[in-house]
Amino acid sequence: MFSFANKEFLSQNTKKDFTKYVNPFVGTSKMGHVFPGATVPFGMVQLSPQTNFEVMFDEDGAYNRKTYEYCAGYQYRDTTIIGFSHTNFSGTGHSDLGDLLVMPTIGPLILEPIKSSSTKKGYYSTFSHDKENASPGYYEVDLSSYGIKAELTASERVGYHQYTFPKSQEAHIILDLVYNVYHHENKNIWTFIRVENDSLITGYRQTKGWARTRTVYFAMSFSKPFKSYGHEKYDSIKYDGFYRRFEQNENFPEMAGKDIRAYFNFNTDEGEKIGIRMALSPVSTIGALKNLEAEVPEWDFNKIKQQAKNKWNKELSKIEVETMDSRQKVTFYTALYHTNLSPILYEDVDGQYLGLDQNTHQSEGFTNYTIFSLWDTYRALHPLFNLTQTERNNDMIKSMLAHHDQSVHHMLPIWSHYANENWCMIGYHATSVIADALAKNVGDFDLEHALKAAINTANVRYFDGLGDYIDYHYVPDDKSHSSVSKTLEYAYNDWCISQIASKAGRSEIMNQYSKRSEYYKNVFDSNSGFMRPKLSDGSFRANFDPMDTHGQGFIEGNAWNYGLYVPQNLPYMIDLMGGKKQFRYHLDSLFAMEIADKYIDKHEDITRDGIIGNYVHGNEPGHHIPYLYNWTDKPYKTQERVRTIMKAMYGPAEDGLCGNDDAGQMSAWYVFSAIGFYPVTPGSDEYALGSPLIKNAKLELANQKTLNVVVENQSPQNIYVQEVSINGKLIVGTKLKHKDIMNGGTLLFKMDRTPKKHE
Amino acid sequence: MFSFANKEFLSQNTKKDFTKYVNPFVGTSKMGHVFPGATVPFGMVQLSPQTNFEVMFDEDGAYNRKTYEYCAGYQYRDTTIIGFSHTNFSGTGHSDLGDLLVMPTIGPLILEPIKSSSTKKGYYSTFSHDKENASPGYYEVDLSSYGIKAELTASERVGYHQYTFPKSQEAHIILDLVYNVYHHENKNIWTFIRVENDSLITGYRQTKGWARTRTVYFAMSFSKPFKSYGHEKYDSIKYDGFYRRFEQNENFPEMAGKDIRAYFNFNTDEGEKIGIRMALSPVSTIGALKNLEAEVPEWDFNKIKQQAKNKWNKELSKIEVETMDSRQKVTFYTALYHTNLSPILYEDVDGQYLGLDQNTHQSEGFTNYTIFSLWDTYRALHPLFNLTQTERNNDMIKSMLAHHDQSVHHMLPIWSHYANENWCMIGYHATSVIADALAKNVGDFDLEHALKAAINTANVRYFDGLGDYIDYHYVPDDKSHSSVSKTLEYAYNDWCISQIASKAGRSEIMNQYSKRSEYYKNVFDSNSGFMRPKLSDGSFRANFDPMDTHGQGFIEGNAWNYGLYVPQNLPYMIDLMGGKKQFRYHLDSLFAMEIADKYIDKHEDITRDGIIGNYVHGNEPGHHIPYLYNWTDKPYKTQERVRTIMKAMYGPAEDGLCGNDDAGQMSAWYVFSAIGFYPVTPGSDEYALGSPLIKNAKLELANQKTLNVVVENQSPQNIYVQEVSINGKLIVGTKLKHKDIMNGGTLLFKMDRTPKKHE
Repeated sequence: MFSFANKEFLSQNTKKDFTKYVNPFVGTSKMGHVFPGATVPFGMVQLSPQTNFEVMFDEDGAYNRKTYEYCAGYQYRDTTIIGFSHTNFSGTGHSDLGDLLVMPTIGPLILEPIKSSSTKKGYYSTFSHDKENASPGYYEVDLSSYGIKAELTASERVGYHQYTFPKSQEAHIILDLVYNVYHHENKNIWTFIRVENDSLITGYRQTKGWARTRTVYFAMSFSKPFKSYGHEKYDSIKYDGFYRRFEQNENFPEMAGKDIRAYFNFNTDEGEKIGIRMALSPVSTIGALKNLEAEVPEWDFNKIKQQAKNKWNKELSKIEVETMDSRQKVTFYTALYHTNLSPILYEDVDGQYLGLDQNTHQSEGFTNYTIFSLWDTYRALHPLFNLTQTERNNDMIKSMLAHHDQSVHHMLPIWSHYANENWCMIGYHATSVIADALAKNVGDFDLEHALKAAINTANVRYFDGLGDYIDYHYVPDDKSHSSVSKTLEYAYNDWCISQIASKAGRSEIMNQYSKRSEYYKNVFDSNSGFMRPKLSDGSFRANFDPMDTHGQGFIEGNAWNYGLYVPQNLPYMIDLMGGKKQFRYHLDSLFAMEIADKYIDKHEDITRDGIIGNYVHGNEPGHHIPYLYNWTDKPYKTQERVRTIMKAMYGPAEDGLCGNDDAGQMSAWYVFSAIGFYPVTPGSDEYALGSPLIKNAKLELANQKTLNVVVENQSPQNIYVQEVSINGKLIVGTKLKHKDIMNGGTLLFKMDRTPKKHE
Repeated sequence: MFSFANKEFLSQNTKKDFTKYVNPFVGTSKMGHVFPGATVPFGMVQLSPQTNFEVMFDEDGAYNRKTYEYCAGYQYRDTTIIGFSHTNFSGTGHSDLGDLLVMPTIGPLILEPIKSSSTKKGYYSTFSHDKENASPGYYEVDLSSYGIKAELTASERVGYHQYTFPKSQEAHIILDLVYNVYHHENKNIWTFIRVENDSLITGYRQTKGWARTRTVYFAMSFSKPFKSYGHEKYDSIKYDGFYRRFEQNENFPEMAGKDIRAYFNFNTDEGEKIGIRMALSPVSTIGALKNLEAEVPEWDFNKIKQQAKNKWNKELSKIEVETMDSRQKVTFYTALYHTNLSPILYEDVDGQYLGLDQNTHQSEGFTNYTIFSLWDTYRALHPLFNLTQTERNNDMIKSMLAHHDQSVHHMLPIWSHYANENWCMIGYHATSVIADALAKNVGDFDLEHALKAAINTANVRYFDGLGDYIDYHYVPDDKSHSSVSKTLEYAYNDWCISQIASKAGRSEIMNQYSKRSEYYKNVFDSNSGFMRPKLSDGSFRANFDPMDTHGQGFIEGNAWNYGLYVPQNLPYMIDLMGGKKQFRYHLDSLFAMEIADKYIDKHEDITRDGIIGNYVHGNEPGHHIPYLYNWTDKPYKTQERVRTIMKAMYGPAEDGLCGNDDAGQMSAWYVFSAIGFYPVTPGSDEYALGSPLIKNAKLELANQKTLNVVVENQSPQNIYVQEVSINGKLIVGTKLKHKDIMNGGTLLFKMDRTPKKHE
């Protein structure tokens, strides 16, 4: 029968396949903190293997420091798997989630995962990369300890498992509700399971972790009825109900407790496949059942796998590139893939979602998203969305406004996930996302609402030194940690608010926040030439080490790097710092200087992997710095730096990220830089020109137009831009206007192996 | 201005006031387990003082055994109060609740309640009964330690506090989310508070107790803005969010944790009143705000107090009695009051409620109720509702059917509260409530649905020996505790199902369950003459002590009492036991025999207070027994017994209940017996006639008709009924038909001081 679904299937198949250029293992070694599992673009489910659980504990069973490596549950060097979790952050610098770990096993039932490599007690399987594959929306691995092949795919809200078993009278599928990514134990608040019938269960898990009050509801459907089931409770919590009346642990359909693990038993024939469809919901098990029915109503693993692939091709095809070599192509498309993993969808198919006020809300006129790692993503990820994901970025802004409306603090999100504000990092960068969308005419969100939300946020005096910032016109270092970083970022955010006010035609507010946007001047020490911690008495702090990233008024950066953060007025900052030439010396020194070991490893996000000289690419405060040469007497040095960084810090293999991908920000930097420009000042309509890495690119813009980026005379040596033109019109200077991009046509770079003389 | 509200107010005032005959302190001493606080009929809020917290702990801070006395938080002998909680069971034999303890204090802030009488540390106030008053819907007390007068009233979903303060710069209102009734500590799962503005907070508390997974949401509004606020967290739970960035404990509007106590500070003038409106919701803080707005939109304590009084008069006036003395009148109306306290409303004003599946549901075509203490209340409370609360009883049955539909076990409630089944006690007596309503033509619930739910319930093999009961035709004592009690009750419940099936015209099902209803015969031991534990091999168990209430196949009763539980076929049971005369000897012995101390105090529900001979009135299995003389050769002995019991076991003062009121069952026994008849066999349309205590009564029946019970020649000595007639027609025998009651008119008892000879 020829159905519409088939037609779509065929038509997708005739299109180009970009997923083959994506290597989901990129960044899964070292500190990339990404996951190789199955997900669809911005999907609520990230179904991914959790590896080497035994190394998370020392011999005594206590957590060891390596937890940080497991922010997304997986390390490429590992050799054991304990199961597949349905939620994983991509590239974050702190973690949570890991919900609903599922593991198939055979043999005598073992219900606790391995916890120590010495005893080998607990369920786990060895695995090898030879028998492991991943592509967008699909992951497979042989669980060699059990002879089980595991395959995973996903829709937006449903994780789909397919396990191929050997013949066994003791086949099990374990649902481990105890397992958590990161600070594993004692993170559960409550768990609840109902065995609705012999092939469907529902339930929820409630945790307190990075998100203080978080609940994930689920509905889990098995393709084959289990022959028996049961659970164990691993906590010591007693309750007074008369459950003692029952043989609760076996075949009793209602389970609850802080820490429970359930199992489902099967007889399997050789090669028998058992499927699991696990639907999630932010609000209820009824919601999860709706999601299941709407997205994966039937047992057809390959269909869902193909749909996931199609969804990925739809997104990846928005930027079609030709590269100098195939490794670059994989690096590029994997970066593009990584920019489509979060923020994630956070609502049921009927639009119900959990709000920050812990009430169930209905999204009206938008789709709700969560996971806003804004200190990272406002820099390049949201600006990238303003080229290729405008509808989603609009929804994300509306989600942020809903967050504000539901916030008892009346604040836009700082770092939020799953109906919680986790308060991670500094600034109020939602204002930047809003300002950037406005600067680029993206979205139809309510401008007055956005302005009000931004102003509310910027005036919560108890927030992170903000009252002092308002009173002193800088954050005094004796009153607040990271005082300089906060002063610089608040000032930038205030500039963003002035831009929003300007769009709203509110000149008084614009002026007010323009003034606040200049407060960065108050922490510049002309004697040392650095942005420097200032005390409440107006004096600069003594004992200042501009190399140190700790206790020097900065966070995740030092004065050399972070002190250059005045994107709203770079010419003035450069004047402060001695003018174009003097500032260029600063940059030259930054990239060239030796950095002493004592400054490394203090923070896990600043490692040798992500450093060139004293420039830290592995963390965000420096992401705009390579482009700052554009404002100096030697703009061509930007071209050198960005090409160096793209070559040194990114790659097509598991070690291809030099630090946390930070919810896509690191990858967004690459995507922009590879096509030749970068949003140094989000909230403005300008990009700084760099040196494209690709040979050419075709951007399918949201307004249905196409921008062709053509790079003439491209080669690994020809890193210097001689001339840039847009539709034949020469670009004078080093800036590209957003509207020139959006008009479509051809952006032509002419390259050569020597810098163009600065005119 | 003359408004509708005023008109209603005046018109109510002109009606008779029955509330003055209610003494809410009746049963607050010893083991009545009732509360004296403010509530409206069947209201969701029971706002009541919590006393002498220090006696719940021994010197080491461990719970001591006296906890059981505090099932409703209050003991009349106590001299200290630690605050006012918004939820309290009425008369239950196990406990939970005590949500959202509020306490006003002055002086230096003390945030933990007193825990030990020796150290006197912690907040608390002494109080005296001289400065304490309670009437239906209203409670007041002087908190002498602080010089604060506390007044409480309530609507269905809102508790209204009014505190009159002395002059103070340090006045506080404490919201203690740690406090729980019963097994106080370690009962919280999570608590959450938002300070929405300077006079409104919202939040929830989640507990695991008798109800395993229970959450109460609230919205709390203050009549005066607080000048400052804060909280302390008393648990050791850590979470990973960056809350360390804040001075969280003071004036930070978002609080969460397992165990938190919040405080709100005020300056007060001498005699200044501060009001609190605390709205509850089963589903959300939005729901609580809706309830607040709908029920108590403004600050008028006296209006809400008057409305509560009016609501009580509406219910109490349904049975208007004249008594021989004023003490009896108080006893009667307090009993009637106690029959209107639970089941409670359990839905928001918009019909949203939490289902047993932990999902939010909308009640369609009914009002949702919770707190079903069915092993107690099916006996006389629900039958009483079938006279005077038919609409509510219909809603309760629909609530039970919803419970069934949401139950993963596909069972009707056993003992359920707050969207949880707590599995307390035995049998599946929801079937009795349904059968009784059908026998009396009450309600419009779906009969087929009810039959299906009853059958499902009666066939859950893993439930409490039910599989064995089905297989063996009795519950074998070697397989299940309380084997005889279960066999007897299952057999009765199965008879109820046969009655439901009969109404549905399903003769096959009727016959099937009629057969099961005879299984009681299988545990009758003709040798001993008792219902007796039987083993799975078919033999009766050796070592049988019919006096003992423990380990003898019964629960909360012994073979002498509980063994008489065959309400569905008393003539046959009496034949089994030797015929009318022999059975009368059994009853005579039961009421006359000395009971050894060793049989007392084993269970807290069997105390000397509730015992006559070996007859235990303080617990339910015997409630029908005084009426069983009607089936013997000397029916008049029923008249003696019931008059004796009414006199000995009930009274108008704090000691007026001889045992737990059991959610109204004990009081319902009194209400029925006082007007002269009792539903010995719920599910039939017959009542057993007793000896009325009142002089006359006017029952406002649900069908708008009126039954006048007229007692001629009534006196304390004239306890024997000579003649009973209904509308002039003599009643032959000792039974009264429900339809005779519902036709209205006059039920005439003629009394004398000697028994009428049995014809």
